[in-house]
Amino acid sequence: MALGEAEADLAIINGSVVNVYTGEIEKASVLIKGERIAYVGKDADRAIGSKTQVINAAGKTLIPGFIDGHTHVDVLYSINELLRFAVQGGTTTIITESCTIATTLGYEGVIHFLNSVRRQPVKVFVTAPPMVTISPVTEENAIGVKELHHLFRYKEIIGLGEAYWGDVVGGNQRVLDLIAETIKLGGKVDGHSAGATGKKLQAYVSSGVSSCHEPTNAEEVLAPIKDSGIPLNRLAMSTDGVGPEQLVKDGYMEVLVQKAIDLGFDPVLAVQMTTINVAQHFALDDVIGGIAPGKYADIVILPDLKIIKAEYVISNGRVVAQDGRALIPPRKHRYPQSLQNSIRLPNDFSANDFAIPVEGSRKEAKVRLMDQVTDLLVREEFVDMPVSNGELNIDVSKDILKVAAIERSFGTGKSFVGLIRGIGLKKGAIATSSVWDCGDLMAVGADENDMARAVNRVRELDGGTVVCASGKILAEIALPVAGEISTEPMEAIADKLERIQRAAKDLGAKSNDIRLTIAVLPTPAIPFLRICESGLFSLRENRFVDLIVG
Amino acid sequence: MALGEAEADLAIINGSVVNVYTGEIEKASVLIKGERIAYVGKDADRAIGSKTQVINAAGKTLIPGFIDGHTHVDVLYSINELLRFAVQGGTTTIITESCTIATTLGYEGVIHFLNSVRRQPVKVFVTAPPMVTISPVTEENAIGVKELHHLFRYKEIIGLGEAYWGDVVGGNQRVLDLIAETIKLGGKVDGHSAGATGKKLQAYVSSGVSSCHEPTNAEEVLAPIKDSGIPLNRLAMSTDGVGPEQLVKDGYMEVLVQKAIDLGFDPVLAVQMTTINVAQHFALDDVIGGIAPGKYADIVILPDLKIIKAEYVISNGRVVAQDGRALIPPRKHRYPQSLQNSIRLPNDFSANDFAIPVEGSRKEAKVRLMDQVTDLLVREEFVDMPVSNGELNIDVSKDILKVAAIERSFGTGKSFVGLIRGIGLKKGAIATSSVWDCGDLMAVGADENDMARAVNRVRELDGGTVVCASGKILAEIALPVAGEISTEPMEAIADKLERIQRAAKDLGAKSNDIRLTIAVLPTPAIPFLRICESGLFSLRENRFVDLIVG
Repeated sequence: MALGEAEADLAIINGSVVNVYTGEIEKASVLIKGERIAYVGKDADRAIGSKTQVINAAGKTLIPGFIDGHTHVDVLYSINELLRFAVQGGTTTIITESCTIATTLGYEGVIHFLNSVRRQPVKVFVTAPPMVTISPVTEENAIGVKELHHLFRYKEIIGLGEAYWGDVVGGNQRVLDLIAETIKLGGKVDGHSAGATGKKLQAYVSSGVSSCHEPTNAEEVLAPIKDSGIPLNRLAMSTDGVGPEQLVKDGYMEVLVQKAIDLGFDPVLAVQMTTINVAQHFALDDVIGGIAPGKYADIVILPDLKIIKAEYVISNGRVVAQDGRALIPPRKHRYPQSLQNSIRLPNDFSANDFAIPVEGSRKEAKVRLMDQVTDLLVREEFVDMPVSNGELNIDVSKDILKVAAIERSFGTGKSFVGLIRGIGLKKGAIATSSVWDCGDLMAVGADENDMARAVNRVRELDGGTVVCASGKILAEIALPVAGEISTEPMEAIADKLERIQRAAKDLGAKSNDIRLTIAVLPTPAIPFLRICESGLFSLRENRFVDLIVG
Repeated sequence: MALGEAEADLAIINGSVVNVYTGEIEKASVLIKGERIAYVGKDADRAIGSKTQVINAAGKTLIPGFIDGHTHVDVLYSINELLRFAVQGGTTTIITESCTIATTLGYEGVIHFLNSVRRQPVKVFVTAPPMVTISPVTEENAIGVKELHHLFRYKEIIGLGEAYWGDVVGGNQRVLDLIAETIKLGGKVDGHSAGATGKKLQAYVSSGVSSCHEPTNAEEVLAPIKDSGIPLNRLAMSTDGVGPEQLVKDGYMEVLVQKAIDLGFDPVLAVQMTTINVAQHFALDDVIGGIAPGKYADIVILPDLKIIKAEYVISNGRVVAQDGRALIPPRKHRYPQSLQNSIRLPNDFSANDFAIPVEGSRKEAKVRLMDQVTDLLVREEFVDMPVSNGELNIDVSKDILKVAAIERSFGTGKSFVGLIRGIGLKKGAIATSSVWDCGDLMAVGADENDMARAVNRVRELDGGTVVCASGKILAEIALPVAGEISTEPMEAIADKLERIQRAAKDLGAKSNDIRLTIAVLPTPAIPFLRICESGLFSLRENRFVDLIVG
């Protein structure tokens, strides 16, 4: 077709094409045959025939489709719902983690997840789950080298997901083996090095990890980087997951690109950081990331290079969205009923299940408290708490509440209850089956009866997040797939999550995102004191520690 | 080790380290454990123990070892002889073609070649041979998709070698299949696009070819590129093979880097173009191309960033050369006798074998002449030539000589004799078994007896290049491996090649490199009229054409 011996299927003529390889912007037409670009240049007329679809892009700018190099599509919403929003904004490739689904459903869950991302209007690649967890029960679901080999047979698998630095530097042999094997298999190893500096960071990098998406937040990092004079061809922008509310209100990758431009970045550089730089990192630049012969025809037509608002989105040679409207609906994947039955709690809970028994006839006990000092960070604190009838009491007036981690994926019946300060609830409780890096159900509450009610409602829903007070459900969302993912439209999810946030605020919750605050309690990704069904875990000491210390 | 919990094997302290990722130069020490770098920074003392080898690089500059991204190590000299010169200059990775050995010895030859490059002091990678040839006989040796799969099981194979654009754009299905399969296998496809422009170039690129090493010569290309303002992170410098004379006299990759610096390139950029840029192109940047934790310890210590003269060369964590002296001798590979027996000519030749019979009793014939217009380029020309006794005559006074292509790899006994103008020999003949992209032996001569003598001497030598006149051998070199590669030291090879050039000059040869001029006569890489055992081949018409046209 490039030779002019065949007709183009699609021709985008007269536009300005951003050449991400050289940084130049060139007047050119683009000819597409099937899924691929065959020609970019001025001599396009010869290949435009009667069956060629022609888009006149005069005055418009063509950029490659955006590539999100790191996100989490196995949390809250299904891939088809994400794609409704991602594609219309110009994203044509997504590289997603699969850790959340692996945590609760193991290897089988990852296979189903792979099936869900296949045959979509845009490309979706997946990183295999290293599954770093503090929970000995959840660890049972972790994959080893054998399963990794199996996963690499799927063409969607292009690497290993983020293995938090603590476990890698600490010498978790299973994870180190997965990293070494991934590199041997030609895959990339995603990193998460927040908090690692100096020799620890170097030890982490030595393992073979080749990226980090956690240096700090965008506003803090982009401005100094822009003026550093350092070549930025190894820097990429990714979402790391966008919440449903933000997706519905603002959009997806296009928001990042627009933000970078608004911060003063050269628009071409902003495009490079979301296209060719990502492709090159994953060694996918032979096929995606630029507008050039032989590459997949993944192209976004903008009104102007500084206005990141897609008029056309072309993926695999097809127009998949126009003027913010998806033309090809994403494929809905039906998860089998077995995966929608992941809340394995044999019985309903009652207030008694949240009791913290104290031995002897003491009136007071010294307790290791989870001290919620920011929306995410939990420090270790020691306080004296009253004991009555052989049970530890909470103190709502001092914002010291109960926090429970209930194993819900394996039917072990294990659970652990501790104390947490800084959540802010004056009454009621919140429970959720959607948590990070652990197959537990988490609950926090100012009232044990409400904690039981909330947990029982999550059980009824086959997974979800529930806010209740005085025995009444105030807000809820069902997350029936793996206890993590809703089957509803994104707008409904966003709406329900907003109601949950509002209901929690009304009960006194301090966090700007109480859902996230509770979800991250068991993750080893965020310091310092963590909780799971087996107890309190100190990341500093890398071991379980006692709740009652004196 | 990065954590300071183990001693370094090798520490390079107090030097200035070129960070090829950011372009910065930083004072830092480098700690090495085994084959890899574990730490780069200022806090190195803690890991230096009693068994640590310490190199004080105060005042010196550290750069990554050079990577030659495209060369030919299967021509003239053996890998161990090349490495004697390459390593001492700072080259620690070589990526070589394997086409020449494949041409004469086929798949089996490539396997032996792979064995020869293994377990050397530096890394050697190999591209599988696409083997584009004009010779139907040589084509028998070409590999297909099945053999490609076998080759990719060898860890040295990282892609497909250069497939000249003519065959790819012309639709050679075997080569197109090899390209597609290489990409599927995750390999890179080297290109050779000299002469392709516009839609032909785009068609070539569309096939999946992702590099070209033939844009033009260094002086012509480097200066304009330097000042273009285009980001050069996708530009690399490679040797494409260095002749023995130049290797002995000047050196290897370090010559290119020094030349770029002398032409005004930023030295850091010159280093990037021979290290990280090459690694990134081949998706090897996870393990080589930079001085960073986790990478192989391939490091060159320079007296100054502008003086590319290696004081130390470290490869895989070992000091392999110091002050231009190799410390670890390259491993000599012994090719089996079967591969040293590749000149399959059943009988000696005589002058009669070079006769060109003309039918009928004509006194003249119109002949299609190979017209050597530069040292490499051959145009098609038509001339009337005298015929006597039913044979076409040559005309030394008009510099119209005989050129013969004799199939010598398969024992078919096929040969073809034509006429060539512009070689310049006033008497004598030159014959060689070392030719490009064809398993033939080539001879040119002003005298048929000398042609026979030269060919017979090549046969006696089991391969080689021979200059003779009046029945006397004036200069020669034996190339017993595959008829292509000498087993002698590089200095002896250089010396013998110089004698050959001088002897040819004395006989009147016009070319600055008569060896190369004759070697390229059958290659489809260079326009326009080519020759092999099956006749004259027009690249423009992509078919065999007649010698006698009227």
